[in-house]
Amino acid sequence: MRIGLDIMGGDYAPKATVLGAIAAFKILAPEHKLVLIGDKPAALSILQENDFSADNFDFIHTTEVIGMGEHPTKAIVQKPDSSISVGFNLLKEGNIDAFSSAGNTGAMLVGSMFSVKTIPGVMRPCMTAIVPKLKGGLGILLDVGANADCKPEVLLQFGVLGSLMAESIYNIDNPKVGLMNIGEEEEKGNITSLATYPLMKATDKFNFVGNVEGRDLFGDSADVFVCDGFTGNVILKLAESFYVVTLKKGMKDEFFDRFNYEAYGGSPILGVNAPVVVGHGISPPEAIKNMVLLCRNMVESKLVEKVKQAFQ
Amino acid sequence: MRIGLDIMGGDYAPKATVLGAIAAFKILAPEHKLVLIGDKPAALSILQENDFSADNFDFIHTTEVIGMGEHPTKAIVQKPDSSISVGFNLLKEGNIDAFSSAGNTGAMLVGSMFSVKTIPGVMRPCMTAIVPKLKGGLGILLDVGANADCKPEVLLQFGVLGSLMAESIYNIDNPKVGLMNIGEEEEKGNITSLATYPLMKATDKFNFVGNVEGRDLFGDSADVFVCDGFTGNVILKLAESFYVVTLKKGMKDEFFDRFNYEAYGGSPILGVNAPVVVGHGISPPEAIKNMVLLCRNMVESKLVEKVKQAFQ
Repeated sequence: MRIGLDIMGGDYAPKATVLGAIAAFKILAPEHKLVLIGDKPAALSILQENDFSADNFDFIHTTEVIGMGEHPTKAIVQKPDSSISVGFNLLKEGNIDAFSSAGNTGAMLVGSMFSVKTIPGVMRPCMTAIVPKLKGGLGILLDVGANADCKPEVLLQFGVLGSLMAESIYNIDNPKVGLMNIGEEEEKGNITSLATYPLMKATDKFNFVGNVEGRDLFGDSADVFVCDGFTGNVILKLAESFYVVTLKKGMKDEFFDRFNYEAYGGSPILGVNAPVVVGHGISPPEAIKNMVLLCRNMVESKLVEKVKQAFQ
Repeated sequence: MRIGLDIMGGDYAPKATVLGAIAAFKILAPEHKLVLIGDKPAALSILQENDFSADNFDFIHTTEVIGMGEHPTKAIVQKPDSSISVGFNLLKEGNIDAFSSAGNTGAMLVGSMFSVKTIPGVMRPCMTAIVPKLKGGLGILLDVGANADCKPEVLLQFGVLGSLMAESIYNIDNPKVGLMNIGEEEEKGNITSLATYPLMKATDKFNFVGNVEGRDLFGDSADVFVCDGFTGNVILKLAESFYVVTLKKGMKDEFFDRFNYEAYGGSPILGVNAPVVVGHGISPPEAIKNMVLLCRNMVESKLVEKVKQAFQ
């Protein structure tokens, strides 16, 4: 297995990414090769500073970088030798089995759709976030920003994608899928959620448990929380801000600790023809390491193949 | 001033409501009369148990109660002698100057629109929630559930309503109004927020500060957070669940304490022709007391008159 890592992606790249690659190397099995994509001389110098042999990695040198604020589509087209563009070419050609970056999220989303493309039958790829449960374990929230407006049919598909991810990556058996809504009753909701409910109720593609509310996010009523990317993004940023508050106030707690995105490594882009993981822009080495390990888990669990089968 | 209180509304009524009325009486000025609407014998018995003179209140005896789970419109029509129906009649006839209940929220919303009616020019009345700010003070979130789907023009009006409330009730000077969104940039958002931004940018009716995100809710970037009732309801319930987690974990903190809805008493229904406040179903006496005091503040601040003027 060859895992591609964009060493130019993220606010602290390439130092944090190369240090993350070193940490990941120490955990990965010998048959798992890490391919570092980006400024090779810079990477070599960081490796040397850390007394770590460059032979442990493969390198693909690139000369351009897509900045965090750049327009995704324009940047992908105008910077063909950027680490993200090159990474997606390698992925498309089968030179790597998964690609990960803590860089420009939009460019990762656009790049994945341009290169490996959306799985036939999937209407809209989406992004996920992990939410910790109070009693232990975790839940999956999707979409968290790739699709601000979603048709009911798209939300139904998110249920399939989230359920497969929960099962494949996090070993949750028969995951409970809930529709994020403003009341438990079937007749509660906005136009979209009202139209989505009967579709989910009728499906045999996942274990629909009905409507869930904002207060259910950390509880056990569902493992997968489906919503449009607008709602999911607001939820995610609000939850993160709570975590930041507890940190600032010095509140140490096992539950709050599990809000730390670093432990999850990043968000897979679900619904495209290859494993792609996007990390948080502020990722330190620990987060980069876990992003790489998430890539490995995605490949090993054959999540992409399972999604393809589900949408055949 | 005569403040109407539905003593049958809420999970712990009439005990919690009557005890709340006693607590409110001790704070209200002599010229502020509390009118207790509901089962008079039950109220008299609770007052006697607490050695509190019934002469301190006016009473309107009613024989019916609208339950928490009842269909709002049907219940209002089918139970004309319910405390909520009678309360709105008193309000409409000018017998009371404000009406408050911790009962069925939908019935309070429908009742207010049926009786005192929506202020001409206001497209949709809405409900608000108070969110504490990390550095002290508070913010207003609206809508939190009255309107699951909102047109951009409706969101623009929520900006006016929230701004007037912040100014009148909470003495916030020139309140900063933010549009809840998924990015700070003008071009970020879903169809509705994208269409709302230019309307807010062009208005001279409030101090628009641009887009805000989930993470800004407890910060100082805005005093008023405008969103549709779906998003607002999800935010509110998520925020409440965080507060509950901190309580369960025994985390005492001044900031988290200020999440306690009891201190705010309830949510005004903004955009109708009289002061109406809805309390939380689980309101204890302290919350009921503050709901009554919020009614007083709404009357004294002439918020309804200010809204009427703004929409002339």
